[in-house]
Amino acid sequence: MRENPMDLHGAFHVYDTTLRDGAQQEGLNLSVTDKLAIARQLDGLGVGYIEGGWPGANPKDTEFFRRAAAELDLKHAKLAAFGATRRAGVKAADDPLVAALRDSGASVVTLVAKSHDRHVDLALRTTLEENLEMIRDTVSHLTAEGQTVFLDAEHFFDGYRANRDYALEVLRTAYGAGAEVIALCDTNGGMLPGWVADVVHDVRENAQVRVGIHCHNDTGCAVANTLAAVDAGATHVQGTINGYGERTGNADLVAVVANLELKLGREVLPQGLLGEATRIAHAVAEVTNFPPASRQPYVGASAFTHKAGLHASAIKVDPDLYQHMDPAGVGNDMRLLVSDMAGRASIELKGRELGFDLSGDRELVTRITDRVKVLESRGYTFEAADASFELLLVEEVEGARPAYFEVESWRVITETRPGDDATSEATVKLRADGVRYVVTGEGNGPVNALDQALRHAIERAYPEVAKFELIDYKVRILDQGHGTDAITRVLIETTDGEASWVTVGVGANVIEASWGALVDGVTFGLRRHEAATGGA
Amino acid sequence: MRENPMDLHGAFHVYDTTLRDGAQQEGLNLSVTDKLAIARQLDGLGVGYIEGGWPGANPKDTEFFRRAAAELDLKHAKLAAFGATRRAGVKAADDPLVAALRDSGASVVTLVAKSHDRHVDLALRTTLEENLEMIRDTVSHLTAEGQTVFLDAEHFFDGYRANRDYALEVLRTAYGAGAEVIALCDTNGGMLPGWVADVVHDVRENAQVRVGIHCHNDTGCAVANTLAAVDAGATHVQGTINGYGERTGNADLVAVVANLELKLGREVLPQGLLGEATRIAHAVAEVTNFPPASRQPYVGASAFTHKAGLHASAIKVDPDLYQHMDPAGVGNDMRLLVSDMAGRASIELKGRELGFDLSGDRELVTRITDRVKVLESRGYTFEAADASFELLLVEEVEGARPAYFEVESWRVITETRPGDDATSEATVKLRADGVRYVVTGEGNGPVNALDQALRHAIERAYPEVAKFELIDYKVRILDQGHGTDAITRVLIETTDGEASWVTVGVGANVIEASWGALVDGVTFGLRRHEAATGGA
Repeated sequence: MRENPMDLHGAFHVYDTTLRDGAQQEGLNLSVTDKLAIARQLDGLGVGYIEGGWPGANPKDTEFFRRAAAELDLKHAKLAAFGATRRAGVKAADDPLVAALRDSGASVVTLVAKSHDRHVDLALRTTLEENLEMIRDTVSHLTAEGQTVFLDAEHFFDGYRANRDYALEVLRTAYGAGAEVIALCDTNGGMLPGWVADVVHDVRENAQVRVGIHCHNDTGCAVANTLAAVDAGATHVQGTINGYGERTGNADLVAVVANLELKLGREVLPQGLLGEATRIAHAVAEVTNFPPASRQPYVGASAFTHKAGLHASAIKVDPDLYQHMDPAGVGNDMRLLVSDMAGRASIELKGRELGFDLSGDRELVTRITDRVKVLESRGYTFEAADASFELLLVEEVEGARPAYFEVESWRVITETRPGDDATSEATVKLRADGVRYVVTGEGNGPVNALDQALRHAIERAYPEVAKFELIDYKVRILDQGHGTDAITRVLIETTDGEASWVTVGVGANVIEASWGALVDGVTFGLRRHEAATGGA
Repeated sequence: MRENPMDLHGAFHVYDTTLRDGAQQEGLNLSVTDKLAIARQLDGLGVGYIEGGWPGANPKDTEFFRRAAAELDLKHAKLAAFGATRRAGVKAADDPLVAALRDSGASVVTLVAKSHDRHVDLALRTTLEENLEMIRDTVSHLTAEGQTVFLDAEHFFDGYRANRDYALEVLRTAYGAGAEVIALCDTNGGMLPGWVADVVHDVRENAQVRVGIHCHNDTGCAVANTLAAVDAGATHVQGTINGYGERTGNADLVAVVANLELKLGREVLPQGLLGEATRIAHAVAEVTNFPPASRQPYVGASAFTHKAGLHASAIKVDPDLYQHMDPAGVGNDMRLLVSDMAGRASIELKGRELGFDLSGDRELVTRITDRVKVLESRGYTFEAADASFELLLVEEVEGARPAYFEVESWRVITETRPGDDATSEATVKLRADGVRYVVTGEGNGPVNALDQALRHAIERAYPEVAKFELIDYKVRILDQGHGTDAITRVLIETTDGEASWVTVGVGANVIEASWGALVDGVTFGLRRHEAATGGA
């Protein structure tokens, strides 16, 4: 039963194409298992449709639909198979690619069709009339077989400019043949919101179809273009998690949905699920192996981060004066940076964030604030290095720094010979749990070698370090104008497979700075482990 | 002479705030030298205004304006000093922070003022009337002193919702006192384009001021919001290169300008300069040490990238069917996947920039382009490393790389003992001018020690190296997700006291990468000296 296309209060579709269009992103490569994992996350977000790929055209996608039928237990989403209208000159019923869609097990098929006359000519190499017939035939065939059909009108906006009548005729044809939604695709991504609004208005007036929207971010307006289409009457939005997609990416589905729900008051996801968005966006990033963008709207690690300094006291009184919404709405958190304007108020706030209530002890706060100021003047930054800051807090609150081992000395040698790559070898001497260890580690760089040596030296005392892995390493020269003869700041991110934390080291010597950050990284991880396992 | 605020055809302001608001980005830390380098790039893009920072409030920014006056020779841009209206209860003429703005040497002052009643109360802790008086007094004082004043109406959109009358009164007051532009700031970033348009229309109707716009990207709509404001009559846009800024960032100025020029037909930069945008966006990224986002609209490495497969032949016949604009308009290139960035045209252009006319030799250009592609795929970048690129050009043009010495091997040891700072010691073995040298150098870091050893080893043969000094050293890890176990790119800047040049080195080992850049740096300097003294 098709809904009335002019009824804006009918069901609203949130349609995710991460697994198909998102996977077109340069460098993104998803296995079938990856795709299944992402589909589960998308279902957890409550999207209505998950476009899984193009069965028949791509063996991996055929396999995905096969395994999805057996392995996925979706609560909210329906799976959609993507594919093209039949080839010119064959019947839809006889086209093997159409058959693959029909037999995919997906209850929804999204058919891509040309709506730009030049593309019909140049890419399909057929006539405009035959293209309409291909659409009519394929849509009718699949709906007759019991599937719901959505149509992606490819290059629609460019086609509309080139030949409005034909572009509209494509929509009418598909809709007339039984397609439920016609998604207008800004395939090349060049549109701006005002233009999208005008075209959608015209389409609704003159083609009378249920309109969907599919945008790319080439002008930096994918989210706004999507909203403009919805405002003009579209009731089906397509996008991808984290805005993945070819070129500049697709519309970021989380930003679109958050704007619709939290800014425009339209409920488009099952209640409460938008609060999972941050977790899910990051979980999907883990699968794609693209680091999450910290500046990403709504779900980025920096999205609700403030350099407290000047405004810390006002933020304490009324945080809503300094944020556009409550970050909990998307499952994110307000975060305060300890910046070089560190005042007492921001230290207190930061402490609270890390679970230390400092408000009762003025003297302690003063001591910490002073120490942070001194360290920052020497080149430390705690803005990005929460873990080092937490170790400092612990030291001040508990009177001593957590010490799991005692370093005696270390040395690292990097050398090269003609024709050979450079190699690094580090030796670390330390005591852990009363035993002295002298351990040598090799690496493809001096810090890598030190990291190996340090972790091997303490792994008898603390076997959990075997799980630790250094996943990011950043070097910054602070005092420019002196080149290598300057203060170096190193930030290191370490993970134990569950969480990751950032530590900082500073020194005139880049290796020494790295060593400081390494030791903090391991110490923080050991303390975390100790807390999780209820103490050593 | 102030322009008529209702005249939309008056001069349009492109106002960059990378050095002030952009620098608020988490993890971004710019030295004065960095800020000067970025200002030069911004001027090369042709922006009208460069907001340099807050002199008086921040010693680094005071220093920036001092050095800018002496060292920057801006062709297109005016420098703007950012600062606040005077404190409550003092005269503007007696406020030391206002004096710092007046004495900054900047011809433009951008004053931030509260326009949200609750912020006046909570953050300024003064009355609404005194806030207006602070604005009136400060604007009048600075304009009387001969400076052009822009006003940033902070939290304007939220303030407008909370108390429209007061928010508009702030604008009228500033404009009445002589401010040239009133920039409406979506400080918390929660606006959507339709809302921005409505408010700007109302402001233009009821406050009759020249409107500017300052957006943040918290809803993913910063670019669209800026365009909506311009469409509604704003004639001054603020933004940052690469969208740097706190939380989710500011409006990406390049995307804003590209949309205005290439999509909406408004010329807002000096002619031809938008074609430098890609180069400049990447060069600024090198300075900030944030990896450029490959999906960034217009200038991203993937922005005009196509998975050729399906459409390859159609793309060849008519590329415009598959891209929303000619990438040359922003200095970017269409890229079919597999290959990498460097196009022939940019190589030729780059050669011309360095004094090599390559236009006559197609085969040579092809050879250089291919070589650059291979090197870039291995992690090299020549965008910021002109000197390494010039050495590569020389090698291809003259058939051999300039070789002043022949390295046999090198080794560097960094070690520490309890209570001592780490020390580094490097030994370099090489031949120069037929003589074999084995020289050891000490330094406070491994690269410093290698630099010392290398220059001492060749100084008998080339005494001019005594003048060389390494003045900047940057490290970037290219392959995130692998920590120290990844490809490292090092950029080194060397000076001979007259000029400075940047070289690049790449390797799995950070020391090896540094060594490559050091050798290039010294080689380039020796070649420069040779050219200056008419050959050895």
